[in-house]
Amino acid sequence: MDPSLKPPAFSDIAAARKRLEGYAVRTPLLSSPALDASCGGRILVKAECLQRTGSFKFRGAWNFISQLPEEARTAGVVAYSSGNHAQGVAAAAALRGLPAVIVMPEDAPEIKKANTRSYGAELVTYDRQAQSREEIARAIARERGAVLVPPYEHPWIVAGQGTVGAEIAEDAATLGLTIDQAIACASGGGLTAGIALALETLSPGTEIYTAEPEQFDDHRRSIASGRRERNAVRTGSICDALLSPEPGEFTFSINRDRLKGGLAASDEEVMAAMRFAFETFKIVVEPGGAVALAAVLAGRIATRDRTIAVVVSGGNADPATFADILRAA
Amino acid sequence: MDPSLKPPAFSDIAAARKRLEGYAVRTPLLSSPALDASCGGRILVKAECLQRTGSFKFRGAWNFISQLPEEARTAGVVAYSSGNHAQGVAAAAALRGLPAVIVMPEDAPEIKKANTRSYGAELVTYDRQAQSREEIARAIARERGAVLVPPYEHPWIVAGQGTVGAEIAEDAATLGLTIDQAIACASGGGLTAGIALALETLSPGTEIYTAEPEQFDDHRRSIASGRRERNAVRTGSICDALLSPEPGEFTFSINRDRLKGGLAASDEEVMAAMRFAFETFKIVVEPGGAVALAAVLAGRIATRDRTIAVVVSGGNADPATFADILRAA
Repeated sequence: MDPSLKPPAFSDIAAARKRLEGYAVRTPLLSSPALDASCGGRILVKAECLQRTGSFKFRGAWNFISQLPEEARTAGVVAYSSGNHAQGVAAAAALRGLPAVIVMPEDAPEIKKANTRSYGAELVTYDRQAQSREEIARAIARERGAVLVPPYEHPWIVAGQGTVGAEIAEDAATLGLTIDQAIACASGGGLTAGIALALETLSPGTEIYTAEPEQFDDHRRSIASGRRERNAVRTGSICDALLSPEPGEFTFSINRDRLKGGLAASDEEVMAAMRFAFETFKIVVEPGGAVALAAVLAGRIATRDRTIAVVVSGGNADPATFADILRAA
Repeated sequence: MDPSLKPPAFSDIAAARKRLEGYAVRTPLLSSPALDASCGGRILVKAECLQRTGSFKFRGAWNFISQLPEEARTAGVVAYSSGNHAQGVAAAAALRGLPAVIVMPEDAPEIKKANTRSYGAELVTYDRQAQSREEIARAIARERGAVLVPPYEHPWIVAGQGTVGAEIAEDAATLGLTIDQAIACASGGGLTAGIALALETLSPGTEIYTAEPEQFDDHRRSIASGRRERNAVRTGSICDALLSPEPGEFTFSINRDRLKGGLAASDEEVMAAMRFAFETFKIVVEPGGAVALAAVLAGRIATRDRTIAVVVSGGNADPATFADILRAA
């Protein structure tokens, strides 16, 4: 970790909101009276699958890329990503007119690869088991003089993702509600770090939880132990977006003392949550995007008399896989 | 038609917006750079499938039911509907604590029947070919002293649906855009009537079009001829929400001189639009809700250098049918 990195201040999140205005979707906070009745609380679903490029990642990418100086324009940007950060960076670079190279795992979903290409980015693939995506991306950045857009280890990225938290707080206030808990998926930890920093100011009583696939619950274990824990495996979850081996060093420096705990959900629970979101909220959610909702629906957190904000973080699901999941009910 | 019915004024639409605040979802206006690039214009998708109860119908139902006097509470309300108005009325009645009876066709999608029941409404089914839903509903209303909530033939309903147009105009203005055309599906015609009245004040240069399934294009033909035309068939489109035999008398009195024309799309085009919305916007759209988008994607209207608002009106699709449509690509 670059030791000069400092957590963004609340004013940085406010500045990110201004930068995103007119570029990012102001995603709605959805709810279901039937769900609320069945769980005895209030569940507020932040539908970031509706965000430009189909995930919250556009927020951080645009907040980063829109701040690059004019000189960075020629050589452009490089990013490594399992798919959603890739699309966010590719779309943000295209909006600024910059070339972009994206390093993605060979086994990333086709829809994520195709979408990334459709924004005009150049794709470089790698073997998730054998190669280091960070090293490949750094080498490309060095060769070309391009700027590396990190997926989470940077205050500009964290401030961008923090706008999710700011919008949740604002919409809950409009509804006259105080948020008891907020739950968001964690892979590198940038989303929960941003949300925690936003809510620290806007809703200081809110407890923040990560949500992860079972066996990939490095944040849950790290929050419990107070140090960065690694996952034993690197592949094997339906949640392709949530396979980072351990929390980011920078993001964990933010999350460690600000997060209350972590929740986990199985692949079966994730698929049930995807079906639930389809039927109840009419949104398309990818597996990784459904894990926080899955944890709530599976009863991993007490809901009675609580108001809980749940981030549905992405919707880039392959149609054939999605059809299978709908059919499996 | 009750001759005392007068088109709502713009102030009635503004009042409806106030009534809906905190009850209806402020649905987002979505866009896709790839779509815009391919059609050479700007397409703004108003995602009303994300509305409470899964369609725009909640707006009119709540605007109507929330204005009922205290005395109407005991006997409650009655409505007839192919499914989306049913859910809107059932949910609005439940919010006000009123009993509701809903008359629905036997062949309505299971999800619409189940959802209507889940709001606590009593369901009465009828045979779409043989019986008149209006007569059944009126008889129930007489027997019980209940208030009939019409699906479109009422200024309170039209004013409620008009809030869709007001929000489109507001969001387009935020983006610095002027809407050249607005397209919305038409069955009874309440949605386009409300949008036309809202945009008459907020965006007077906008041309309004209906969108309908082929063979059910009674609005298209009625706008062309200047009088209410009937469809030759009553069943046979995938768009179960759009099978009204002719435009409403009251709604057509509004639509006749305010609408520019009508577009139609085939079932195949509708299914392609549902897949497109899934992949591009991450929203679940039911067949009837996709017809306006289908007409645009099928090239039924010139898009080059135009800014076109397209209402995606509902998302109550049966999961199994939706899976088949995803698979059929």
